[in-house]
Amino acid sequence: MNFEVINIFYYLAVILLFSKALGLLARKAGLPQVAGMVVAGVIIGLLGKLHDPDNFFLQFFMKPNEVESDVLRAFSQVGVVLILFSSGLETNFSDLKKSGLAASVIASFGVAVPMALGSLGTFAFLNGFSDFSEDKILNAIFAGTILAATSVGITVETLKETGKLSGKVGQTIVSAAIIDDVIGIIVLSVVTSLQGGGYSQIYITLLKALGFFVFSIGLGILFRLYFNWEERKFPHKRRTSIFAFAMCFFYAFCAEKFFGIAAITGAYMAGVMLSGLVDTSFVDRKVVVSGYMIFSPIFFSFIGISADFSAFDLSYVGFAAIFVLLGIAGKIIGCGLSAKPFGFTNKESFTVGCGMIARGEVALAVYGAGKSLIAAENGVDPLVATIFLIVISSVLCPILLKLLFKDKGGKSGNADGENVLPLAENGNNA
Amino acid sequence: MNFEVINIFYYLAVILLFSKALGLLARKAGLPQVAGMVVAGVIIGLLGKLHDPDNFFLQFFMKPNEVESDVLRAFSQVGVVLILFSSGLETNFSDLKKSGLAASVIASFGVAVPMALGSLGTFAFLNGFSDFSEDKILNAIFAGTILAATSVGITVETLKETGKLSGKVGQTIVSAAIIDDVIGIIVLSVVTSLQGGGYSQIYITLLKALGFFVFSIGLGILFRLYFNWEERKFPHKRRTSIFAFAMCFFYAFCAEKFFGIAAITGAYMAGVMLSGLVDTSFVDRKVVVSGYMIFSPIFFSFIGISADFSAFDLSYVGFAAIFVLLGIAGKIIGCGLSAKPFGFTNKESFTVGCGMIARGEVALAVYGAGKSLIAAENGVDPLVATIFLIVISSVLCPILLKLLFKDKGGKSGNADGENVLPLAENGNNA
Repeated sequence: MNFEVINIFYYLAVILLFSKALGLLARKAGLPQVAGMVVAGVIIGLLGKLHDPDNFFLQFFMKPNEVESDVLRAFSQVGVVLILFSSGLETNFSDLKKSGLAASVIASFGVAVPMALGSLGTFAFLNGFSDFSEDKILNAIFAGTILAATSVGITVETLKETGKLSGKVGQTIVSAAIIDDVIGIIVLSVVTSLQGGGYSQIYITLLKALGFFVFSIGLGILFRLYFNWEERKFPHKRRTSIFAFAMCFFYAFCAEKFFGIAAITGAYMAGVMLSGLVDTSFVDRKVVVSGYMIFSPIFFSFIGISADFSAFDLSYVGFAAIFVLLGIAGKIIGCGLSAKPFGFTNKESFTVGCGMIARGEVALAVYGAGKSLIAAENGVDPLVATIFLIVISSVLCPILLKLLFKDKGGKSGNADGENVLPLAENGNNA
Repeated sequence: MNFEVINIFYYLAVILLFSKALGLLARKAGLPQVAGMVVAGVIIGLLGKLHDPDNFFLQFFMKPNEVESDVLRAFSQVGVVLILFSSGLETNFSDLKKSGLAASVIASFGVAVPMALGSLGTFAFLNGFSDFSEDKILNAIFAGTILAATSVGITVETLKETGKLSGKVGQTIVSAAIIDDVIGIIVLSVVTSLQGGGYSQIYITLLKALGFFVFSIGLGILFRLYFNWEERKFPHKRRTSIFAFAMCFFYAFCAEKFFGIAAITGAYMAGVMLSGLVDTSFVDRKVVVSGYMIFSPIFFSFIGISADFSAFDLSYVGFAAIFVLLGIAGKIIGCGLSAKPFGFTNKESFTVGCGMIARGEVALAVYGAGKSLIAAENGVDPLVATIFLIVISSVLCPILLKLLFKDKGGKSGNADGENVLPLAENGNNA
């Protein structure tokens, strides 16, 4: 075992301890756990800068060297891939059919409006519409893309707590949030694939994205047939989970290597292709355990550890405020207005909009996948703004929903039930 | 995501697929799964050598570059650390007390005799007792140490299948196998810590080993108090498992960094210090899932991937035969003879000896931890011999036990029951 490998155990210990402790602290303060985990990473990163090999105490504030950073990045990437794989596995197509058209339209506007507002806002902040260079436009679109995906986890959790999960409004919100995930992933694929060629090659990019979906669905049907046979012949066996993991990693690899699409998109598609099987929840459980025990904390902390605050100044606070505002307003406007034509009252439409504002781990995953799109100089890194968005939106979402549902006096549902999405930030058994 | 990280997904996919497939194939052939996993690694390693970036097919036989190897080694080290952490957690002190003195004596001879025979045999093979240079002696002791630890997993599995787990002979075998693990770990600590200073500094080495046990028990009592409080206040929470993981990694780090002892010894001690708590099996379950889903397959395959067969020649086959023979005879003689004075009949004593011959993942862990002790030139790498030992001993152990127990006509016990040691190679739910 060489020098670097043993130090990895130190980082694993510190990351697991700090991220869980700060995650719990965050939850105690009514904030999402992921916010605490990212902050833990920021603290670990800052403490690492104090490292001094000659000082007895400061030698313990270790800073990963290049190889160690690569190793931690690998763990963190496995983490985000597992989060998206789990999201994919949890896709429930029969739920989707119920709300059907309404949910699809609401989700589409729920992606388009915040994305457009966020991109325009970021672009204005970057140069006041004076500089139309490609890198600034890409930077702005990237920031907008972060605003696209609602956190299904936080939404479901809140609806459960208010006992409204199975009502018409609740069903519509959940279905829209799921479709929103799918659209968000497609948009992310297109945006991240712009990285290489820029938007001059947008047709090739779109063609590649399309190619990946054809590839992943085609191959997925074959894999599905295999898993179908296997779960009949060997139900609930470890091999099922392990082969599913292998498929997830294979999709992640192919997506990025051959189609220029984010690895997380591949993992998500692998999950979708294995969703709805008898053993899906069995596999998902293993994904979730492997995730929260080691990989997810590393993913969230590593975002904080590798965050660069050197360009941070006061003007950034203004950007963060605009970003959060547009992110929340965009969902309420986009989803609320598009709900109206589907027979919802004004108040119900507003409720649908408010139910969609929560952002979570997917926003950070999108950030991680597209980080390199930040314009090298005079660009804006939306990390801190994204963390603010996650914290504020996921605190605000349950508060608004509870207020809006209160008048109707709905019965309190399975608030103590098991978390449907155990990777979600506010899981009861954290 | 840089070039190296995305390739990791490829290796993860290939390793999980091949190691599980060959593991299952091995089990189907009545061999332990770990043997199949190591062979999978050997195949992956050999195929990697065919890599040719210009050939359409051969480009897919990838060979990890240096950074990628470091990342895979980190995963594999986490794997072996989790295996030993799990072993430690599963230590059952009340079982130990029952068989007490007899088991301790049997275990001690069961470690000493094969170790002595194996070391002498290897030394004879290396130079025919003509060259007493330090590196050859260390090489021989290292090979002997691999023979020390019985695989509790295979033993328990076999006793369960024959329905003899709770009989006097069965209890003695299990207790002795557990104590044998502890002694094996201590011996390993001492042997691996010789790496740095050689046996000229053996006192410092022993002092450091002692220091580590004092440190780990002292700190462990404090941690235990914390976990005791936590499991009362927050039973069955994720945080318990995550903090236990952090403790395991911290112990692994401290053992190697500050005491020059193998990381796996640290992990094992962390497990022992957390054994017997109310939430221990809850934590162990998470360790086991994280292990078999991703880390253990990488550990076993990586042994094969990084195996060097360039020095392999015909004389090695002779060595392997001697090594396997001494490993099996050593346990039967050491345990069998020392069982006799404790009121066992001749046949029962022989049964106890046969019940202790199985080797498994711990032998490979010992191999991995001490690999650098192999004498640089004209040394002997016991990897292939170790794999043969694992395969032959774990096939022979159940056969012998079944034959020996047959005459007595014992009832068939919980052969279909859940595997007590789910990391064991022959688990039913693999």
